[in-house]
Amino acid sequence: MILDKINTPEDLKQLDREELKLLSNEIRELIINKVNATGGHMGPNLGVIESTIALHYVFNSPQDKIIFDVSHQCYPHKILTGRKEGFTNPDKYYEYTGYTAPEESVHDIFKVGHTSTSVSLATGAAKARDLNNEKGNIIAFIGDGSLSGGEAYEGLNNAAVLGSNMIVIVNDNDMSIAENQGGLYKNLKLLRETKGKAECNFFKALGFDYCYLDEGNDIDKLIETFEKIKDINHPIVVHIKTIKGHGLPAAERNKEAFHWVVPGILNESAKISENNAETYDSITTDYILNKAKADSSVIAVSPATPGASGFSQEFREKLGKQYTDVGIAEEHAIAYCSGLAKCGAKPILAILSSFVQRTYDQISQDLCLNNSPITMLVYWGALSGADATHLGSFDIPLISNIPNIVYLSPTNKEEYLSMLNWSVEQDKYPVAIRVPYGELVSAGMPDNTDYSNLNKFKLTNAGTDIALIGLGNFYHLAQEVKSELSAKYNINATLINPCYITGIDEDMLESLKKNHKLVVTLEDGMLNGGFGEKISRFYGNSDMKVLNFGGLKEFTDRVPIEELYKRYHLTSELIIGDINKCLEVYSA
Amino acid sequence: MILDKINTPEDLKQLDREELKLLSNEIRELIINKVNATGGHMGPNLGVIESTIALHYVFNSPQDKIIFDVSHQCYPHKILTGRKEGFTNPDKYYEYTGYTAPEESVHDIFKVGHTSTSVSLATGAAKARDLNNEKGNIIAFIGDGSLSGGEAYEGLNNAAVLGSNMIVIVNDNDMSIAENQGGLYKNLKLLRETKGKAECNFFKALGFDYCYLDEGNDIDKLIETFEKIKDINHPIVVHIKTIKGHGLPAAERNKEAFHWVVPGILNESAKISENNAETYDSITTDYILNKAKADSSVIAVSPATPGASGFSQEFREKLGKQYTDVGIAEEHAIAYCSGLAKCGAKPILAILSSFVQRTYDQISQDLCLNNSPITMLVYWGALSGADATHLGSFDIPLISNIPNIVYLSPTNKEEYLSMLNWSVEQDKYPVAIRVPYGELVSAGMPDNTDYSNLNKFKLTNAGTDIALIGLGNFYHLAQEVKSELSAKYNINATLINPCYITGIDEDMLESLKKNHKLVVTLEDGMLNGGFGEKISRFYGNSDMKVLNFGGLKEFTDRVPIEELYKRYHLTSELIIGDINKCLEVYSA
Repeated sequence: MILDKINTPEDLKQLDREELKLLSNEIRELIINKVNATGGHMGPNLGVIESTIALHYVFNSPQDKIIFDVSHQCYPHKILTGRKEGFTNPDKYYEYTGYTAPEESVHDIFKVGHTSTSVSLATGAAKARDLNNEKGNIIAFIGDGSLSGGEAYEGLNNAAVLGSNMIVIVNDNDMSIAENQGGLYKNLKLLRETKGKAECNFFKALGFDYCYLDEGNDIDKLIETFEKIKDINHPIVVHIKTIKGHGLPAAERNKEAFHWVVPGILNESAKISENNAETYDSITTDYILNKAKADSSVIAVSPATPGASGFSQEFREKLGKQYTDVGIAEEHAIAYCSGLAKCGAKPILAILSSFVQRTYDQISQDLCLNNSPITMLVYWGALSGADATHLGSFDIPLISNIPNIVYLSPTNKEEYLSMLNWSVEQDKYPVAIRVPYGELVSAGMPDNTDYSNLNKFKLTNAGTDIALIGLGNFYHLAQEVKSELSAKYNINATLINPCYITGIDEDMLESLKKNHKLVVTLEDGMLNGGFGEKISRFYGNSDMKVLNFGGLKEFTDRVPIEELYKRYHLTSELIIGDINKCLEVYSA
Repeated sequence: MILDKINTPEDLKQLDREELKLLSNEIRELIINKVNATGGHMGPNLGVIESTIALHYVFNSPQDKIIFDVSHQCYPHKILTGRKEGFTNPDKYYEYTGYTAPEESVHDIFKVGHTSTSVSLATGAAKARDLNNEKGNIIAFIGDGSLSGGEAYEGLNNAAVLGSNMIVIVNDNDMSIAENQGGLYKNLKLLRETKGKAECNFFKALGFDYCYLDEGNDIDKLIETFEKIKDINHPIVVHIKTIKGHGLPAAERNKEAFHWVVPGILNESAKISENNAETYDSITTDYILNKAKADSSVIAVSPATPGASGFSQEFREKLGKQYTDVGIAEEHAIAYCSGLAKCGAKPILAILSSFVQRTYDQISQDLCLNNSPITMLVYWGALSGADATHLGSFDIPLISNIPNIVYLSPTNKEEYLSMLNWSVEQDKYPVAIRVPYGELVSAGMPDNTDYSNLNKFKLTNAGTDIALIGLGNFYHLAQEVKSELSAKYNINATLINPCYITGIDEDMLESLKKNHKLVVTLEDGMLNGGFGEKISRFYGNSDMKVLNFGGLKEFTDRVPIEELYKRYHLTSELIIGDINKCLEVYSA
């Protein structure tokens, strides 16, 4: 294998053009096999093998700095920069993160997993170079999809006036995760069709020098192009047309499905493993379809992540004009929904916990200050073994401390659907619902709660001494603790499902003082700034003891969830241990 | 006066063109007098009198909806929509907010005070109209300065493909609060110079239809233009050139100084009231100038609000290339600083508390996940009588619950400068400093603390029974409480300056258990998700009582600060009352 000779980007420069092409084939095969084995980003990486080889052939990393936007497409870069073992050796498949990570290599400048950041980061890197009178090319490598995010635009607007070397490579495969959305994409289409010659040019309008390459998967042409602009003394956009999923026919045909894949996607067995069991995704889309049919003002909105919330192509087509994908533009998504709600529509926004944080100001100002009645469904809000860039542990502190919004945390199917319907039908509050994470749980009977009685906790079992408040996903953990306290210690603990994250039931908490010594809170997210601390504050002036269980303030990176549960004492055994310690010490 | 006849926009339509012009003069005089009396936005409002008259003359608000971006320019609109008393009658000068506010008038669709939101809100409003098969024009009125924000771009990208009526009026006065920054502004200049005829056109590149009007302060021409595009069936940008401060020579000459003015700006006495007393602003700019002179890698950054942090024109000129104004682009500002820091520069970002929330994801991902050593100075972080859109009470929950960042809260000049210098010199952490709010306090002696010992609280007075932890601005309040407890009740309370908002000093808190019954926390911001709750959580499993003092979770709107202090029990008298209540009840 040619790859055997490649340990650093320097080694690439010894190869002739034929070898570079053979190398690209080797890398392609490696990526297909590895991603099929472990899951991961397939299409984005297959599309940039040639351009990554050409970049490392022409430029001198790490003196020249390449900053990959969102870094969904950094596998070829990892293979060329000393980390090929992560792709050749199944034992090392999980050794490296799927994103750029400075702790792995000097060729990775930033840890990146959210979209639209590369140009801004690169502008800072370029300015630092200039302030320190250093040399080198600064290269932001950004996909067309990522250009829909506001930070990318803010970056371009500023990069354009930097006055020194700055290279923005626009990797245009005519796809976001799903289809691109927005006026910009008509311009990119025009530029592709005119081979970059159209006068009407978004990048030139922002002040960039510009060049276009139609053959963005042709190593020779790429090298030629990059050599021309190497060491350029001003900002330039190099617009290259590439094919997402290049070289894997299934991925080229079905670009959305192959953006990110589960393990075994290419195996025959994968095709028959479908099942029709209900999931929180499926009951959500069923609900929306029914509601939208009955009410033409209902509209579903996604910020470019329809697949993550089960918004399949079929679902989107059925909704027709009652569906908007706004692109990777969470800020716009919230303001758009606020505008919709204020003017008589009923928007339902589906957003992942990790991306809620991309739109804090809009939730606060555009939405909550205006009290616009939207429904925001927050998916994947939970402690998890995810990588550091996609944690679902921060949404509770973020959302719950903003005034006016009602943040609900259902514990099962019926409760979820009841909250969802209440939210869509009411017109008083912005409402967010933390969609339960994991397998669907059914209560077996409908939920008829009137959720307009804000902050009314549900007392599901009245006991004494110890009260367990289990929020959302962790209500089930609280149930477990209760069972074990009963079975092993003959303690009849009180069990509470708080339902609301944005307020506390002061009457119920007050009444617990009568016959309880300890209140235990459990939340599936970070403790700091979260739900439990409010309970601690409430009882601060009393004799009630309080124990808050949840995650600590840290970026965890692919730590197995069992390990996190152990670290944070989130098993019934460890929780009961802490309860014993607390009551022994202080009731002595 | 012609204005006497104008109570609703309908009344405008009865006037002839001459009367409309006379009306514009009347409105101009009113605004100049009122803003000179009360302070407020002067230049932005004077520039849009004619265009606002023309809008209300041609369109039919509220069936047609006009959405003002940031609403710094809504005074003429307020005068024409039933709120002229707020400008004619000094007794009512403070009756209306300086921003659009639906609770005041049906002609205000949204409560707005942050920048770059209008196009997204309007896109939602337009889509709601379409879903409900309604009629009407939707108009976003946005200044050139506001176009630098990412949300505006996300909005434009989506608005362009709406497929129905949507009018974006770009009010181009060639100014942001200070000068515009970025490549876009070269294009706007080209468009002005070519009277909109240049092929290279940012708005067309995004897919908009486009028309240009050079005489944006000419009522006749404005009416003619708006009549042409009224009821248009697709998205269009109407680019009008206006003069910021139009009709007030001082404001036309000095656009930045007259963007927002203090009361009495036009009075002769105003010119001699300058004094040279030290302020937190002045010691900051002095520090930065000295540091930048000694170290060419030091760079100051502002997101278009240099004046608010005392970054005067002189200061900016002295710094030269060691200063960047990124435009109203807080997301870029953080990522840019992260890039700078990661590549060997020392960025110092000045940002207002209320605008920190415009860049949460970037603080989390671009900055903290990457541990980039920047210094972020947070100004105006305090409870205040500000309007609901500019509150400084949310930065503590926002920043302090993000991993890796060190958020410091100095209590006086020497401590602040010591923290600032530590931050700029260290290379381990992203650091934010909550610049003290209000008059400068000097300790009278240098502070030699080593702030790399993270989360080490300062025990300034060791006492017994009660410990007072006063954070930042409220350290002085804690001192007052201590004095009064001593004078009136002969209680020798412990006094603690925590310095750090992002972590707690567990050793010190543990040691307080020995001889204290009550810990009181005081913070100048919202309690929910803030500093005090962490102390409550810490003591949850112990006998220690805890009282947290701070603001409640709410959007307050121009509530006088004394009233807020009363509401939140933030006077020494009320605090001591609560302490007595707590100790009486529970030590009995």
